[in-house]
Formats: sequence, structure tokens, C-alpha cells
Amino acid sequence: MHRYRSHTCGALRPSDVGASVRLSGWCHRIRDHGGVLFVDLRDHYGLTQCVVDSDSKAFKAVDAARSEWVIRIDGRVRTRPAGTENPELPTGTIEVYIDDLEVLGPAGELPMPVFGDQEYPEETRLKYRFLDLRREKLHANIMKRGAIVDSLRRRMREGGFFEFQTPILTASSPEGARDYLVPSRVHPGKFYALPQAPQQFKQLTMIAGFDRYFQIAPCFRDEDARADRSPGEFYQLDIEMSFVTQEDVFQAVEPVLHGVFKEFAGAKRVTDVFPRITYADAMLKYGVDKPDLRNPLIIADVTDEFADDSVEFKAFKGVIKSGGVVRAIPATGAAGQPRSFFDKLNDWARSEGAPGLGYIVFEDEGGTLTGKGPIAKFIPAQIQARIAEKAGAKAGDAVFFAAGTEAKAAGLAGKARVRIGDDLGLCDKDQFAFCWVIDFPMYEWNEDEKRIDFSHNPFSMPNFDRDDFLALGDGDSEKILGIKAFQYDIVCNGIELSSGAIRNHRPDVMEKAFAIAGYGRDVLEEKFGGMLNALRLGAPPHGGIAPGVDRIVMLLCEEPNIREVVLFPMNQRAEDLMMGAPAEATPKQLRELHIRLNLPEKKA
Amino acid sequence: MHRYRSHTCGALRPSDVGASVRLSGWCHRIRDHGGVLFVDLRDHYGLTQCVVDSDSKAFKAVDAARSEWVIRIDGRVRTRPAGTENPELPTGTIEVYIDDLEVLGPAGELPMPVFGDQEYPEETRLKYRFLDLRREKLHANIMKRGAIVDSLRRRMREGGFFEFQTPILTASSPEGARDYLVPSRVHPGKFYALPQAPQQFKQLTMIAGFDRYFQIAPCFRDEDARADRSPGEFYQLDIEMSFVTQEDVFQAVEPVLHGVFKEFAGAKRVTDVFPRITYADAMLKYGVDKPDLRNPLIIADVTDEFADDSVEFKAFKGVIKSGGVVRAIPATGAAGQPRSFFDKLNDWARSEGAPGLGYIVFEDEGGTLTGKGPIAKFIPAQIQARIAEKAGAKAGDAVFFAAGTEAKAAGLAGKARVRIGDDLGLCDKDQFAFCWVIDFPMYEWNEDEKRIDFSHNPFSMPNFDRDDFLALGDGDSEKILGIKAFQYDIVCNGIELSSGAIRNHRPDVMEKAFAIAGYGRDVLEEKFGGMLNALRLGAPPHGGIAPGVDRIVMLLCEEPNIREVVLFPMNQRAEDLMMGAPAEATPKQLRELHIRLNLPEKKA
Repeated sequence: MHRYRSHTCGALRPSDVGASVRLSGWCHRIRDHGGVLFVDLRDHYGLTQCVVDSDSKAFKAVDAARSEWVIRIDGRVRTRPAGTENPELPTGTIEVYIDDLEVLGPAGELPMPVFGDQEYPEETRLKYRFLDLRREKLHANIMKRGAIVDSLRRRMREGGFFEFQTPILTASSPEGARDYLVPSRVHPGKFYALPQAPQQFKQLTMIAGFDRYFQIAPCFRDEDARADRSPGEFYQLDIEMSFVTQEDVFQAVEPVLHGVFKEFAGAKRVTDVFPRITYADAMLKYGVDKPDLRNPLIIADVTDEFADDSVEFKAFKGVIKSGGVVRAIPATGAAGQPRSFFDKLNDWARSEGAPGLGYIVFEDEGGTLTGKGPIAKFIPAQIQARIAEKAGAKAGDAVFFAAGTEAKAAGLAGKARVRIGDDLGLCDKDQFAFCWVIDFPMYEWNEDEKRIDFSHNPFSMPNFDRDDFLALGDGDSEKILGIKAFQYDIVCNGIELSSGAIRNHRPDVMEKAFAIAGYGRDVLEEKFGGMLNALRLGAPPHGGIAPGVDRIVMLLCEEPNIREVVLFPMNQRAEDLMMGAPAEATPKQLRELHIRLNLPEKKA
Repeated sequence: MHRYRSHTCGALRPSDVGASVRLSGWCHRIRDHGGVLFVDLRDHYGLTQCVVDSDSKAFKAVDAARSEWVIRIDGRVRTRPAGTENPELPTGTIEVYIDDLEVLGPAGELPMPVFGDQEYPEETRLKYRFLDLRREKLHANIMKRGAIVDSLRRRMREGGFFEFQTPILTASSPEGARDYLVPSRVHPGKFYALPQAPQQFKQLTMIAGFDRYFQIAPCFRDEDARADRSPGEFYQLDIEMSFVTQEDVFQAVEPVLHGVFKEFAGAKRVTDVFPRITYADAMLKYGVDKPDLRNPLIIADVTDEFADDSVEFKAFKGVIKSGGVVRAIPATGAAGQPRSFFDKLNDWARSEGAPGLGYIVFEDEGGTLTGKGPIAKFIPAQIQARIAEKAGAKAGDAVFFAAGTEAKAAGLAGKARVRIGDDLGLCDKDQFAFCWVIDFPMYEWNEDEKRIDFSHNPFSMPNFDRDDFLALGDGDSEKILGIKAFQYDIVCNGIELSSGAIRNHRPDVMEKAFAIAGYGRDVLEEKFGGMLNALRLGAPPHGGIAPGVDRIVMLLCEEPNIREVVLFPMNQRAEDLMMGAPAEATPKQLRELHIRLNLPEKKA
């Protein structure tokens, strides 16, 4: 017989009854039923009920065992007495009568138990992560994470992609976040940077001719912690393709995400064909560039309606006169809500810095849609009807209004939409609702500095005829501000999984793009010189995306905290409490790395 | 038609003749055959011959194209004229007549060509890695690397292993090499370390109950470069298993390595069942703990023979008297070698610090095996016969001798074995010859400090009854020096792919093991405190191994230099010449990280 086990703790079935078996595992729970001891023995694969009484020579040894001891038992499989079966366990109809026990790994007093659902402070959980990981939910999350990563890999390979490993000790890249630096021993005064993303390497892989790259890529950003991002490191499904349009990227990525969500979503629905929403539409209809499409409410622009001479609502009139807009957020079925519903929303709007949210409640009065509420009287019936139509409101619904500069009104309307949807319970949470957001503007007007600036990613390819782009001049501001980039976001349930882009692979177009934003060739060379050199030696058109693995896993595990889906995470202060990182270095180490400490002065 | 291609450059076949197609790729080679231009268009998938003459409106554009420009062409597929087919290309019977050409990515003057086999200095190749990677051999190596990694992953999963990701920003661990450190911004004066290996994390994963771990794990060691190890980072197939014996690890790992080598070895043979050689046997028979079994020569101990009173060879007598040994290295078929063969070996031995290699040449004189050569006359016939038998030498063979302390004689004999095998062409290089080396001694005698010390890995489990081990005392030196550890190496063609071990998971045994080597509990706690805490809270028996991925790929690509099998390697001075790493940090970065430079003084 094997030294440690003939079966795992999840293997035994009624067909094994009568067999002599050997099991090893952790004592999950030990119960004393008056001279009969029950040990739920646990391993990675399952749980088996083991039992012993004083007839067994192992009784004393079992009696001495404690929770989380690792033991080996030899015994005989028998059917559980009728009425004591556990239908929730695959092994629930059998038990093992213990003949022999060996302690393989005893345990001292536990700082937190493994059995049971009690909550423990995160510090304790992280310091004793190896105990916390023995608990069912966390164990299952980590296994699910692995299965999701396997599935992503398989789907990428099936899509004709190849996996590559790019360097982790590398140079700083212009990703915008703070780098982790690694002092060089061999080159005094110089530092490696850990990659914020393998962006440049994946582009160089395309320029090197490899056509379809992917990597489950570790990325490093020295940023303060957020719930959905670990301090330090995170993983992305990094993707890049050559000789492709934006449409090709969508066609390659959509089946992978759809497939993996279908596979792991359980009973939840997954968007079959991801809708594509322009950035302008997203800002108008959802007030945000990452719309949560589980919320059915759609914002409408009603500036024209409030601008109508027949409307006498002065607050909005003033906003419109100074160039602002009015947005309407429908509140389906809100007519039946108590006054407090409307008051609370108004209070919330004021806490957001807005003067409040005007609203109209629509009712059916003898077959005619009639607006009620504080501001309805300022708006003639035919305008009310137009507003209701634009906002898709019917009798029994309400419509809220957000007015202000376009950006402010859109933002407020977007937040109000989320709140109203949640308050009215309109969102169907049993789904993963995906969309692409496309047509991001290449440039925007920087009002503070009175100049044109990049809007999002300066390295995306403008969606504009190349010759026309190169010919753009000082007088073309309006045309320039209308240019869209081949840039796109993939969004799921209001969470941005990734930005992506068709890259600007033409040095001439890139120089022009930077010149338009007021950056000289020197800036470009300094920030992006290595890439530019490569682009000048035969670069294919290429583009890609990099969905966040941690966020995908969080969604599929329904965990709002990233630390529930990472094997050994750091805490929010970027410490590994179990391993004791970061830690002090020795003077010898510092000397070898040609650095010394420069500590902040202690506060008196 | 697609914006860039209807087919890849490797796709077109005779069945496509007559079709209008669109291809994109790099101009691999452009030839002008008197008004007819040939462009070999290359992409990741293959090469297609494209052709144009002055009848085409694209002629001028093709004429302007240069090597490594990225172009799109539209054209018609036609059969190549009889006699101009290229049977080495899958597309070799067709060509595409170019109707239209678009330049997608022009190239300036190339610092090194892509077409052709000319050698270029490594600095140039690394600085323009994206060009070098376009060359056939390197491109194929990198693709093969990816396929090998995929295969390793698949085989591990099929073996019931799960892949995990362990932290990269972590604490220093006692692996013995130099750490890369990462200064913490949040914790002034403290540093993360990049993992030299995820050793502690994989053990903690077992202690957390996950049973079978693997990872294609990036590892980091700040060591000076070697041909077979990148400076900086490298990858290992990191493996750990719970509730296993050494035999279980072999049974899990052997099919993975055998399978992946079979898959990628081409015509080379792969050891079917990996022999197991004890460390003692390896040192005796091969003079090294990583024997190259492609070499058929086996060293024998002939100390007893030279100690015989009838032998008058004083040099060896003296060695034996002072405790040394004599080893015999057979040289199959060497009798026919000229005198210079023997002289050269002797010269070599002297360059190794030995007084020389004595030898006997065996000849058949009338049916009797007779020794010749400088020292034969000191050795009577019956002793010569015993030596020949021990060394497996027959008429026509020679036997060389290495004498000295056991370690020195074994080392010299081992090197002589390699040299003789190579010089005589005895090694069958058409194979991957694997073996396990087992039974490493746990301790060794430290002659300098006159004390017992760890021989190899202090964290391996001793192969010794636990109670007896805990009871070992000061008088048990001999017993202690005889203890073997559950530690093993996997060796292929004389290259150690990995060490592995059954870990010492019992804190009491570990404390005793360290006490025997003279280390107090304080040292153990300091070096290994985190792990010890975990081992005290219910640890399963576990063990593993970590074959080097880069070394596996080097063997299967037959590349002696690791930089030929890594996508973006650093040079031997740990620089990335393409990205310019390492680089200077800004004063702001240094301030944020609470460090300042401590540069060596400039030499006057």
C-alpha cells in the first residue's frame, strides 16, 4: 500500500464498502459522540467521515488528535447507518472505521480556525494565509482562478495565438503609472524597472514578425491599493495581433471572453453579441464611458425641449444660454414611490455639488400623459410629451433632469442613472452584460492651457486618412477635435476590463500626432525612442488589448475584493504579512547595489 | 476583401491558381531579373514568391520597395514556370503576379540584414533584436520554446497538477544566490526581493492544502552571466506535491520530461526508463554527480590492485598509503591511437594540476591480454588482468589511471572520461540520455573547520527513522555522515536540469538537522521563521522539483547559448541594449523610494 494514501479524501463511494483503505489529510472537525469519535478528514479533493470507538487500537491516538493535524489513517470502508448520510458530500453515504493512525504533521494552537464560517480580521487572514486558504470558499476561488486562466490560454491558442514570455527586469515605459525600480549591481547608479505592462515588448514582438501574441502577463505598478487592484502586481491577458483592423481584434477577443464567461458564469446569462457603443453615445446615454448595461435606463438629451420659448424654467434656461445641456434620466415605475424617494435623490444630487435634480412624474389622466411635480407647471404639455417620448417614459414613470456643462450634466446623469436603477431594483444582476466602447476622440480641448491635448492614448492610430492627417494645420482645430482614434474599451457590468487600440505604427503619423498636441520630436524620441527606432525598420499594422485577469476572476467568483482571488496577496499597505515583505536590507546588500538609505526625518 | 490579407504568406497552393488574393508581409528578398521583379514576401506563416513586370501598374511601386519594407499586395495566383518550382517551400509551385502594392511600413537602412546566414556581432543582434528575431532560426527557436512550454503545461495538467501564480514582489529567501531588491515607496528603508525561486511559496501552497502545484515560474538571481543562464531572470517548471514519497515525484515528473523530449527531439532517441544512480555510484563511475550517459565509458576503482604487494609503481603506492585511491578510465579502442593521443591526455592532466595520467595499452599476444606502455612493466600480468576486467578493457583498449584523494581522483577521472570519450568519438550524440541521481549525503565533513556540515540542501528530509534521528548524539559522527537525504537530481546529457527533494516538514526534525550541523534554533528561526511557523500548524509530507525551462529548450533547440532561446534576453553584462535597461532614475524617483546613490569613486 502507498506510504500515505490508497485514496484521496474525495474518492470513496458505496462500491468501496468493505475495502481496506489508507487516507491522509487534515482533521477538519473532530466530534466526540460519547465514546465514538468522528473525524472529518479533509484534503484537496474532498472530505471523508472517519470514525473510531474504543474497540480500535487507534482510539487513543484519534482521541489525542486536534483540529488541522495532518494524519494518515488505515481503516475499513463501511456504509453509514441509515439516517446519518450526508447528501451534500460525494462521500456522504460511507465512512471509514479507523484501525490505525499516524500523525504526519501536528498543529499547535490555531490563530484562526479553518472549520466554520466565522469572519476574521484581514490582518490575521493574511498573516496566516496558508490557514485561510484551507477554508472552502477561498480554496474554491483560487482553484477557479486557475481554471479560468487555463481556459483563457486554451481559447487563445485555439484562436491561433502563441504565448510568449517578455522580460520582467526591463526599462521604464511611458504607461503613466509609477514604476517599481530595481537597482543594478553591475551598473552603479542605474536601475531596471518592472514592467507596468509588456506594451512595448508585445509591439516589438509584432515588429519582429510573430503575428499573434498573447501572454498571461504579470504587471507591476507602484500605486496605492484599490479594492479591485492589488498593490504591486497583477495579471493581464495581454494580446497583440498584426495586419489587423479594430474589427479583427473584436472578432478574436469576443469569443474568448464570451466563452470563458459562459464556462464559469454558472446560471448567469452572458451577452451573446457584444454591442458596440461609441464613446459619444456612451457619455450621452449612460453618462459614463463604461456603461453598466444591466441597468436598462437610458439617458436622453432634452436641451432643445428646455430651450423652447414655451418653457419657463429659468434655472435650466440659464444653463442652456451659457452653453450647457439638460439630460433626462427616466425612472421607470417611480410614480408609485413615496415623496422620500424623490427627496433622497435630490439630497444625493446636492451632495454631488449639483443644485438638485428636477423631475416630472408622469401620470395618466383620462388617456392623456400628464406631468406632475415641482417643475411640471413651468413646462407646457406638448413639451412634456416630447420629453417623455425622448426619455421613453410612460404613465407611472418619472423623469429626472441634470443640467450643466456637457461634462458635468453627463456625469451627474450617469450617476443618477445608477442610483435610480439600484433604488428601483431595475437591474437584472443575473447576467454578465458586455459591450465595446469605440470611437474615442483622439484629442480634447485643454481649457486650462487653451490648447489641444491628447484625449486618451497618444499611441493609438487616428481614424483619419493618412495624407490628410499629415496635412493638418493650425487652422484645423475643429477638424482635429473631431478625429476619432482606433481605440476601444471592453466593459462588463460597468467594469472596464481593458482598453485596447490599433497602434500608430507609422513614425511620420506619430510625429504629426504629437506635434498637434504641442510635443516636439525631442519629447517623442525621449519617451518612445526605442519603439520609434523599431517602427522605422519595417513595422506591420498591429493592435491589441489586455483584459485584466484579476478583474475577470473577481467577476466570475463574485468577489468585490481582489485579495479573495489571489493566492498570496499583499495587504493594502503593500506588505506581505506572512513572509515579512518588504524588509530591511543588509548594509552589504546596499553597498553592492550602490545605494544608501535616505529616510524621512522622524517627526518629533 | 480584408484590409490587409486574404491569405497568409504560407497559405497558397496549386488549388488557388487563378484566384485574386491579397497578401501582406515583409520584403524578404527582392531580385531584378531584367525587367521582371521577384519579391519573396514573408510573414510568420511562410514565404510567397511575388512577381511583377512592366505590364503591371504596380511595377514602379515594387521597384521602389526595399528589403524589410512591410507591404500589402493584390494579385493573381499562377503556376510557376516549369523548372522554377521550389520544393522546399509549401508555396513553392505557385507565385503571385502583383497588380497593386501598398506600403504599410517602410524601412530605413538596415543595421543588419534579415535575409541570409551571415553572422553578426551579438551587440548588434541584441540592440536590433526585433530584426534578429525575423531570421529563420531564431524565429523557429522562439516558436519551439512556446510549443515546449505549452506541452509542459498540458502534460502537467494531464498528470493532475494545477497551475498557480506566486508573488514576484516578495521577501528574501534562503536560496543562496544574490537577490534583486526593490525599494518600497510606502515603507521607507525597506525592500522587496524578487524570488530566486518560489520555493517557500510552493511549500506554503502545499501546507495550504492544494496537493499538486506547478508553475512556469519566473525566477531572479543577481548572478554574473553564464552561457546556460541569463543574467537576471529565467524560468523553471516548478513542481510540488503533497503526501508523496521520492518515488511518487519520479513517477510524476518522468513521463512529463520523457514525453516533451520525445515530442520535440526529432530523430534523437530519449531514455525510456530513466536509470537511478546513487550519488556514490555517480562519483565512482562517472567522477561527477551529473553523468553524461551518452558517453559509454565507466570508471572503476583499482586501488586494491595497485595496493597489491606485487605492484611496484611507487607513485600510486604513496597515494594509497596516505589514504588516496586509484581510478581506472577505460579508453575503448585506443590501442590504435598514435603516441600523440596519449601525450596530449597527459599534457591535459598536468594542466589540471595532476602529475599526469598513467596508462596501460592492452594487446593480444598469442591469445593473452598483455599490457604495454610506460607503467605496464611495474604491474604483474595477473594484476593487469584484474585491472582490465574491472575497467572492462579488452585487447585494443587502453586504461588510464587517476590517483589522489578520493575527491581529486574522482574529479580527474571524470574529466578524463569526458575527454577520452570525445577524443575517441565514443559518444552517441543522437540521443537525450536521462538519469536520476539519488541518495545524496545529508552531511559532509568540513575538513577546514573540523566539523559536520550540510552537504547539499539543509531543508531536505533525512532518509532515517525519525525517532533515531532525534536521538542522534555527539558520538554518532560516523552514523551521521552516512545519512542520505531524500534529495535527487534529474540529469540529461550531463546537464543538471534540476535538484529536487522531499522536504523536511517536521519542525522537530529540522531543528535537530540544523543542530547536528552546528546551527542553533535562532539561526533557523531567522533564516526560515515564516516557513517554520507554517510547518507548526499542520503540514503534510511534501516534495518536488523544478526543471529549468531554459535548459530544456536549449537542449531541444541544440543551442549552447541561452540567448538563442529567449525572446528578449539581456546581454552578458545584464543590459537590455534594445530598451536601454538599466537606466538612470530621476531624482524624484529616488526621493520617493527613500534612497540615494552611493557611487564608487571614479578612478583617477
